[in-house]
Amino acid sequence: MRLLTFQHNEQAKVGIQQKETVYDLQKLTEQFNQANDESLLMEYDLDSIVIQNEEVMESIISVWQWAEKNIDSLSGVTYKWEDVKILAPVNRPGKLVCVGNNYMDHCIEQDVEPPKKPMIFSKWASCIIGPDDAIKLPEESVQVDYEAELAVVIGKKGKNITEEEALDYVFGYTIINDVSARDIQFEDVQWVRGKSYDTFAPIGPVIVTKDEIEDPHQLDITLELNGEKLQDSNTTNLIFNIPYIISYLSKGFTFEPGDIIATGTPHGVGVFRDPQVFLKSGDTCTIEIENIGVLENTVD
Amino acid sequence: MRLLTFQHNEQAKVGIQQKETVYDLQKLTEQFNQANDESLLMEYDLDSIVIQNEEVMESIISVWQWAEKNIDSLSGVTYKWEDVKILAPVNRPGKLVCVGNNYMDHCIEQDVEPPKKPMIFSKWASCIIGPDDAIKLPEESVQVDYEAELAVVIGKKGKNITEEEALDYVFGYTIINDVSARDIQFEDVQWVRGKSYDTFAPIGPVIVTKDEIEDPHQLDITLELNGEKLQDSNTTNLIFNIPYIISYLSKGFTFEPGDIIATGTPHGVGVFRDPQVFLKSGDTCTIEIENIGVLENTVD
Repeated sequence: MRLLTFQHNEQAKVGIQQKETVYDLQKLTEQFNQANDESLLMEYDLDSIVIQNEEVMESIISVWQWAEKNIDSLSGVTYKWEDVKILAPVNRPGKLVCVGNNYMDHCIEQDVEPPKKPMIFSKWASCIIGPDDAIKLPEESVQVDYEAELAVVIGKKGKNITEEEALDYVFGYTIINDVSARDIQFEDVQWVRGKSYDTFAPIGPVIVTKDEIEDPHQLDITLELNGEKLQDSNTTNLIFNIPYIISYLSKGFTFEPGDIIATGTPHGVGVFRDPQVFLKSGDTCTIEIENIGVLENTVD
Repeated sequence: MRLLTFQHNEQAKVGIQQKETVYDLQKLTEQFNQANDESLLMEYDLDSIVIQNEEVMESIISVWQWAEKNIDSLSGVTYKWEDVKILAPVNRPGKLVCVGNNYMDHCIEQDVEPPKKPMIFSKWASCIIGPDDAIKLPEESVQVDYEAELAVVIGKKGKNITEEEALDYVFGYTIINDVSARDIQFEDVQWVRGKSYDTFAPIGPVIVTKDEIEDPHQLDITLELNGEKLQDSNTTNLIFNIPYIISYLSKGFTFEPGDIIATGTPHGVGVFRDPQVFLKSGDTCTIEIENIGVLENTVD
């Protein structure tokens, strides 16, 4: 299922994407309840859905399966994808965990040895924005860079998770742009401030539940800046794969549903290009990950 | 006001501390409503109280002022401090922002230059525990260290806050022990993982609202390990004071109510002692900050 948060009449709503159509989950549920004499309550906030996960996903799946069978009898439950404002699918992850230098090609472009263990840092969640929001260049930085990344959304609490069971803890996948003020990041040494300016974490457009992604390590990932392809790789090039990262981190801390892991960016970021490329006002930054979608943000 | 979260009959409740007595805010409110024919609703969760701040604090102040005047007619609203299990006052800060090397004496013991700007890093909030919980030593580390710190609890959303108005954004103050796995912290280079093992952020015992702290930069701060005083300083020794830190950080990101700033630790941490001192099972770690209280945790 392809879940999203969209805005309609100034209200944030949960939707299900099918190709170019957005289904309004609240309206679907109302019509499902009426047709089936049911009284399913739905938590209309994707953060809460991810946190409650199995309990509430079971209801959502029932509603969706019914809707697919009765598609002709439904009315007023859909919008065109291009007509709605897509918001960040989730806003309040407890942890936004990032993995650095996790593509071999990205290590080569920096001329650094590939890490022997995952290189972990964090962003503060207050910098999350949606696909239709603009990345705002902070006054303090003249080196704002992009980073296309596959993001893993955790759906279950766990500690000391083995690699074998790691994917049981995954709710789904989305895209994140790990926007980074390089001058601040490197000058600070600790990266979190330079990675956490407001608007520095565009996320979306949808969370694809894990059942729809056969292998998260076989996904093309690209980033275009103003239509020019500057990152072009595949998640098969991840040095540490998703089960390894989850298992590794869960030795130290408890994962909680809603936590997000940004798995690292491939080669082609602006700071290591020759000449260097940094974001400037008016740019458009477009990330595409196979089977997930397109996350496009303008730059202010 | 000295606000806390405590456990009673397996339930987390909000309390007000006065010397050795804990007043049950929910029960106070019920008796206030009954006596005054009022119907104040109270959000019984200190995270929510901090987030809603002014709206709900106005009600709490009314109830508390009434209670102080009618102390003799109240019944069943108090517990003895030593009889209740004190929990972490808050559990879900959006950001747990830490300032490093922010005491001159701590820079001298490390033989590092005092920073020219605040040195910022983060802890993930999933490692928060209360005063009556134990710090658990992770298997991966043999160098777990303590750090006594004054913590600032933000009570109002804001960006680009000036130093002059910075304290308007403060809800109150508490104590944090910035427990740190030194081997992991230094080996990782990025500090967040070594600082975020489960149980690595004891917080409490109370949040003292800012009106009760005349000057947060004039507070004695000490840490004892098994009764031996290993840190002994005063917040007057902070290199960057609280208004400066708030103003500095708010140039980059938006502060949200509930965010916590750990302002840094004074000299005397274990890793820079000769011989080095690290936490071991059975230890007791006791931090005291003037006018706030005592945060004591055992080590498992």
